[in-house]
Amino acid sequence: MATHDFEPTHFHVTIGSHEPVLRVSSGDTVRTWCVDSGGFDRTETQITDGGNPQTGPFFVEDAAPGDTLAVHFERVQPNRARGVTGPVVAPHVVDPWFVAELPQEEDEDWWSIDLDAGTATLEKPPPGLESLGALPLDPMVGCFGVAPARGQAISCATSGPHGGNMDYRGFRAGATVYFPVFADGALFHIGDGHALQGDGEIVGTGIEVSMDVEFTLEVLKGKTISWPRAEDAEFVMAVGNARPLDQAVQHATTELMHLLAEDHGLDYRASSALLGQCIRYDVGNVYDPAYTAVAKIAKDVLP
Amino acid sequence: MATHDFEPTHFHVTIGSHEPVLRVSSGDTVRTWCVDSGGFDRTETQITDGGNPQTGPFFVEDAAPGDTLAVHFERVQPNRARGVTGPVVAPHVVDPWFVAELPQEEDEDWWSIDLDAGTATLEKPPPGLESLGALPLDPMVGCFGVAPARGQAISCATSGPHGGNMDYRGFRAGATVYFPVFADGALFHIGDGHALQGDGEIVGTGIEVSMDVEFTLEVLKGKTISWPRAEDAEFVMAVGNARPLDQAVQHATTELMHLLAEDHGLDYRASSALLGQCIRYDVGNVYDPAYTAVAKIAKDVLP
Amino acid sequence: MATHDFEPTHFHVTIGSHEPVLRVSSGDTVRTWCVDSGGFDRTETQITDGGNPQTGPFFVEDAAPGDTLAVHFERVQPNRARGVTGPVVAPHVVDPWFVAELPQEEDEDWWSIDLDAGTATLEKPPPGLESLGALPLDPMVGCFGVAPARGQAISCATSGPHGGNMDYRGFRAGATVYFPVFADGALFHIGDGHALQGDGEIVGTGIEVSMDVEFTLEVLKGKTISWPRAEDAEFVMAVGNARPLDQAVQHATTELMHLLAEDHGLDYRASSALLGQCIRYDVGNVYDPAYTAVAKIAKDVLP
Amino acid sequence: MATHDFEPTHFHVTIGSHEPVLRVSSGDTVRTWCVDSGGFDRTETQITDGGNPQTGPFFVEDAAPGDTLAVHFERVQPNRARGVTGPVVAPHVVDPWFVAELPQEEDEDWWSIDLDAGTATLEKPPPGLESLGALPLDPMVGCFGVAPARGQAISCATSGPHGGNMDYRGFRAGATVYFPVFADGALFHIGDGHALQGDGEIVGTGIEVSMDVEFTLEVLKGKTISWPRAEDAEFVMAVGNARPLDQAVQHATTELMHLLAEDHGLDYRASSALLGQCIRYDVGNVYDPAYTAVAKIAKDVLP
Repeated sequence: MATHDFEPTHFHVTIGSHEPVLRVSSGDTVRTWCVDSGGFDRTETQITDGGNPQTGPFFVEDAAPGDTLAVHFERVQPNRARGVTGPVVAPHVVDPWFVAELPQEEDEDWWSIDLDAGTATLEKPPPGLESLGALPLDPMVGCFGVAPARGQAISCATSGPHGGNMDYRGFRAGATVYFPVFADGALFHIGDGHALQGDGEIVGTGIEVSMDVEFTLEVLKGKTISWPRAEDAEFVMAVGNARPLDQAVQHATTELMHLLAEDHGLDYRASSALLGQCIRYDVGNVYDPAYTAVAKIAKDVLP
Repeated sequence: MATHDFEPTHFHVTIGSHEPVLRVSSGDTVRTWCVDSGGFDRTETQITDGGNPQTGPFFVEDAAPGDTLAVHFERVQPNRARGVTGPVVAPHVVDPWFVAELPQEEDEDWWSIDLDAGTATLEKPPPGLESLGALPLDPMVGCFGVAPARGQAISCATSGPHGGNMDYRGFRAGATVYFPVFADGALFHIGDGHALQGDGEIVGTGIEVSMDVEFTLEVLKGKTISWPRAEDAEFVMAVGNARPLDQAVQHATTELMHLLAEDHGLDYRASSALLGQCIRYDVGNVYDPAYTAVAKIAKDVLP
Repeated sequence: MATHDFEPTHFHVTIGSHEPVLRVSSGDTVRTWCVDSGGFDRTETQITDGGNPQTGPFFVEDAAPGDTLAVHFERVQPNRARGVTGPVVAPHVVDPWFVAELPQEEDEDWWSIDLDAGTATLEKPPPGLESLGALPLDPMVGCFGVAPARGQAISCATSGPHGGNMDYRGFRAGATVYFPVFADGALFHIGDGHALQGDGEIVGTGIEVSMDVEFTLEVLKGKTISWPRAEDAEFVMAVGNARPLDQAVQHATTELMHLLAEDHGLDYRASSALLGQCIRYDVGNVYDPAYTAVAKIAKDVLP
Repeated sequence: MATHDFEPTHFHVTIGSHEPVLRVSSGDTVRTWCVDSGGFDRTETQITDGGNPQTGPFFVEDAAPGDTLAVHFERVQPNRARGVTGPVVAPHVVDPWFVAELPQEEDEDWWSIDLDAGTATLEKPPPGLESLGALPLDPMVGCFGVAPARGQAISCATSGPHGGNMDYRGFRAGATVYFPVFADGALFHIGDGHALQGDGEIVGTGIEVSMDVEFTLEVLKGKTISWPRAEDAEFVMAVGNARPLDQAVQHATTELMHLLAEDHGLDYRASSALLGQCIRYDVGNVYDPAYTAVAKIAKDVLP
């Protein structure tokens, strides 16, 4: 149960079976940092190409295809005093006829981040938002996951069963996220910090920041899952990544029913009766090539 | 600002330009009741055909096409001690390959409702749910709205710009819902009470109950909206009804941007900056022919 | 087997259980005419409001819910020398980011129709199309169908199991289209002639014209179908109307498998083996609120 | 303009920046062969893992990112006397409620291929299809394309801007297909022969066969496209790969409008007027993770 301090020197814009940067044992903790989605580090210096560059991959001893990798986030902390956001909602999140009314060619917004107070403030608020003031941070990890099946290397713009660019607000410190293992060592990647993000990531960004992260990697031998799962203090969750959002909902609902069967002994008749009145859906992103839906249920109603 | 006690004697399974059952003035309050989605009343007697039968329509004096009708829910209260739910998740909310694994031909679940305690309990829990216990009620209105445009009469199975079968948990006592007016008098309909419902209405029902309702109808002259809007103590909201869910999200996001422009003076550049980091999406239903997405933002960040 | 000449005097912009304009027997033929989608007749005079106004409804004796109505088109003939088309592709048929590059506020295109030659020619071709010349006509019916279930009145902008605004090129003279009967007398409506139309109706119109039509209505007693079906000299077909197009494809494929079971004795294993290598899909419209997909198979491979 | 005879010895189940197996010049022709989708060669021997294994990649000298690679198919010829097809339609191409009615756990169908006659015949027709007889072959290439952007390696189960598993009947001998070049040398891959296939590939296969192929690779320097394009004797085409099918239609329509602008001088106003009445849509596949839509227009109406 060692703790590793890792200094990244290069980054990947795909999640794949890249050469591991560190080998750790199941149960070990890693402390490291990530550049922001554009490749900028804590000094606001671009040290690598943009596209959600990933720190890693981390090889976890004993992880083999068919296992599950648990990633517990101890710390997800922006490590600089500025972040950037997209200026206009994406054309695909509004009605098609409305797209021509959106402003074009706008500059990005910059936010001042007060790490002590835990807030972010627009540096130059667009007219109408002068009174907005400081918003509380809610730091999260936008893009992370494990090497996908069959030697694929998948762009960090998108997501799938291996995780990837899910952009879900619930992946914050305190959460544990579970991934199906497709490659020996699982090969965990992490990047794309957001100091704050609305549902859907509808301007194409959260408040993009570099960040310090600390996480514990644990192999669940012989536990096989099909899509990412997660849990926090209140909920157990299952994640679906696909377009349309309907299909993401289908993946997430199906995976949650499998979770309830495996972990709580509920057959599909019982999980139907429970989920029908108690399920909650969260929208991760509706911006990326694959959208992200999260199906979840409060732990306190589970057997 | 009169209060009307209305006893329904017949019901409609479409929302349309039907003969009004009562004429009220803007600002008046109506106290009435609704059968459940199957046409059963407070005595568990079927008094009309099923299909979300509607009480009404109520003609609101002075409401004309181009206006908005505000419906404030003072009371949404189940009025009997039993409700019924679908036994198995709908095939279209799970992965297509998984459908063949779902149980077939199951009986419905019945729930005992304790109106004093405000809870519901499965009468015969399926194996695995014996320990579930009582769930807190969260009563809501599943299907309600105004006569749609051009003389249409739209099935209470589905929804649209006129409202209809949106099955959104947020339409509960305390909420105000706004509808575009398409016909003289607006012609407000209401029915389909749920004592409790999960997101998505994925078993095709909430806990279906008859209910007593009290609501105030107000005409906003000259205020024109395109989709239902709503507000509660914490949020302002816009609703989109369509398939796929992606299109419902587009409708809701566009309407929320219009709301922020009209009511809070934010142009689309400003609303983008705000919504990007602060928007929340709720999933109403992913069961009905049209799915329902709700885009909302906390009032406390609005100018 | 009478032939009725019918002169319409009023029109409907919904398809519903309206008062019949004529009662005919099964097997009778009707000769009548339709205004164009904007309500303009053969003299280019607007005689009714636009929105695909329908001639009818025609009550067919003995047609009852659960039966099928067969509509055989003997004649679908534009009856004037000019037609109009939308000037720019709809924003929802192109990539969302591309919408802002489309021209705005353009005038409609007018086409000269040579009824003898059977061609249409742009009156003022936009720059680049000066050399286009005359295109062969392929007249079709855009919007037609029967009264939908449960007293609904559905806008002629959209479509469903009852037919409606399907905008499919294959509904031309020589085709027979089958509808499920939902109301006594079936209540057949017809309108929205197109002298020519590309797949998808992507500019929101075909070449919109008034037209003379002749069709024979036949009741198939006790034959129950779920979606429109059709046949022409070469193919049998099933139609799905929904969004997304994926769902329209699901409806059409399912209905075609039912057709092959009922009419050709193929169970789902056999129809799978056949359709897998022989099915054809046509795109009706991808413009209207519900999209239209057609699944078809050549008659010469059927048992 | 050399002709290369190439004997493959290993195969890839992703399309990516793999080590080239042969370097050719622009304008050169390659004669080679492909195993079937399951990795079986002309002797029905499995020589590699299944999953649409690809022959190649072929490095084309001078091809660089931003160029276009033209692939002209001189020959697409099954090279053995048997092929295999899936036995039941995929659950996602039928209505969700219908899935439970589909047969489960069926064996595949085998077809005898008569290469001289150019026909395929079911070896053991399921009951009901005994009279089916021989179907004419229409050989095509299911999965082929170029290395995608940014070092990605994308599963041969799916498709994207780089091509991949498009399963479109129109990619047959005589067609020329154009791909955007993302990597030096373009890195062309080819596999997944179908002796015959219906639209949509709805049983998950065509008649899967190994095949002999002959194709000419040409670099169009400085020509930049966004999605695959194609042409045959009658049509020019643009391809979109995505889910839902609506999005594939959007990609294909947009790319076709770009094609008409670049190659035929039509601005978007002119191409709208033309495509509105003349566009044709074909459905490639509605089975794979990304669906394929083809937008096309007859050459004889182009300026």
